[in-house]
Amino acid sequence: MSDYNPKASTDHRICFVGDSFVQGTSDQLCLGWAGRLIQSAVARRINITHYNLGIRRDTSRDIAARWEAECAARLPADCEQLLVFSFGVNDTSIYEGSLRVPEQESLANCQSILSTATARYKTLMIGPPPMPDASHNRRVAQLDQQFADIAAGLNVPYLSVFEVLRKDEHWLKEAIANDFAHPRQQGYERLAGLVQDWSEWWFK
Amino acid sequence: MSDYNPKASTDHRICFVGDSFVQGTSDQLCLGWAGRLIQSAVARRINITHYNLGIRRDTSRDIAARWEAECAARLPADCEQLLVFSFGVNDTSIYEGSLRVPEQESLANCQSILSTATARYKTLMIGPPPMPDASHNRRVAQLDQQFADIAAGLNVPYLSVFEVLRKDEHWLKEAIANDFAHPRQQGYERLAGLVQDWSEWWFK
Repeated sequence: MSDYNPKASTDHRICFVGDSFVQGTSDQLCLGWAGRLIQSAVARRINITHYNLGIRRDTSRDIAARWEAECAARLPADCEQLLVFSFGVNDTSIYEGSLRVPEQESLANCQSILSTATARYKTLMIGPPPMPDASHNRRVAQLDQQFADIAAGLNVPYLSVFEVLRKDEHWLKEAIANDFAHPRQQGYERLAGLVQDWSEWWFK
Repeated sequence: MSDYNPKASTDHRICFVGDSFVQGTSDQLCLGWAGRLIQSAVARRINITHYNLGIRRDTSRDIAARWEAECAARLPADCEQLLVFSFGVNDTSIYEGSLRVPEQESLANCQSILSTATARYKTLMIGPPPMPDASHNRRVAQLDQQFADIAAGLNVPYLSVFEVLRKDEHWLKEAIANDFAHPRQQGYERLAGLVQDWSEWWFK
């Protein structure tokens, strides 16, 4: 750890907006992948304030309805304004016989959220993680691809994590042992590592 | 740590709503006092999801404008709905020659927030912490007393931490060495300990 970091003097404010995977549900450390990334940046003396705006069960529809007001209250204009989204698993889950959010609406929500966000804030998106359910996963994988295309069209950097986490030795194993959805400490650690190693991540 | 905890089966959801002290600004662990309390509860196998809704620079006016929508999105009716407030330091700070929020408005905001909150959710309030500034502190101490009276009138349990933290060996020392406002790791640890030891805290 060096004593000097060029990012130490800038007042960075970052919002992580998404679902339970963003919130860090079932993480014993109560940090999730977002908290781990920020802890690591702070350890390298980066001046950063983070707001975890992940909400359990949130779909792209829920996020579309709240992200603007929640981020505006947290990202003042005189700071470095940063925003990371991650959602999609809940859109593709089946509730009472139908998809919680129809595919076309998920895509429209993603397009609308990212286009508005990137006009105001530096914006990144992390794709949805895998679930221990093959048919659910086919839908997640498809949405992940479509979200990546939307992000590319808007020049929003997008990190797909689906395939890597599907093959990860901990993610699905922890999810199955837990609640058939959320990993625990090692899964979140792994996802944090994927973002940390990503060339587009701000705090290297 | 026992293997069985009677609170393990209930789905607890808790929102911490307030200012930068709630957010945990300058805490090297990126948890703040709220995150420490939840980490401790999770280590005792309590099933709990926490949402940190502290925002830097927020006054009671800012909080009055946002808390209802933010908490409604996070506290579904089929869960144990818990809410903790803490604010006041920013109300009593001077900006361009005047108080950011006049005293009468701070009191009205507190009354309105707590009366609405306690009708819907189990609600607690933690008083504002001290600052390394004598005249600011006189105003914080007075507001703390008045907030405690309002909370008592509404049967909302209120923990005043001002005097204990003012005499704490770390809180003000860390604040002075940092940014003249926020403590660091030891200060947040101490405040978490005060709430943990409080008879009204839910997760003993």
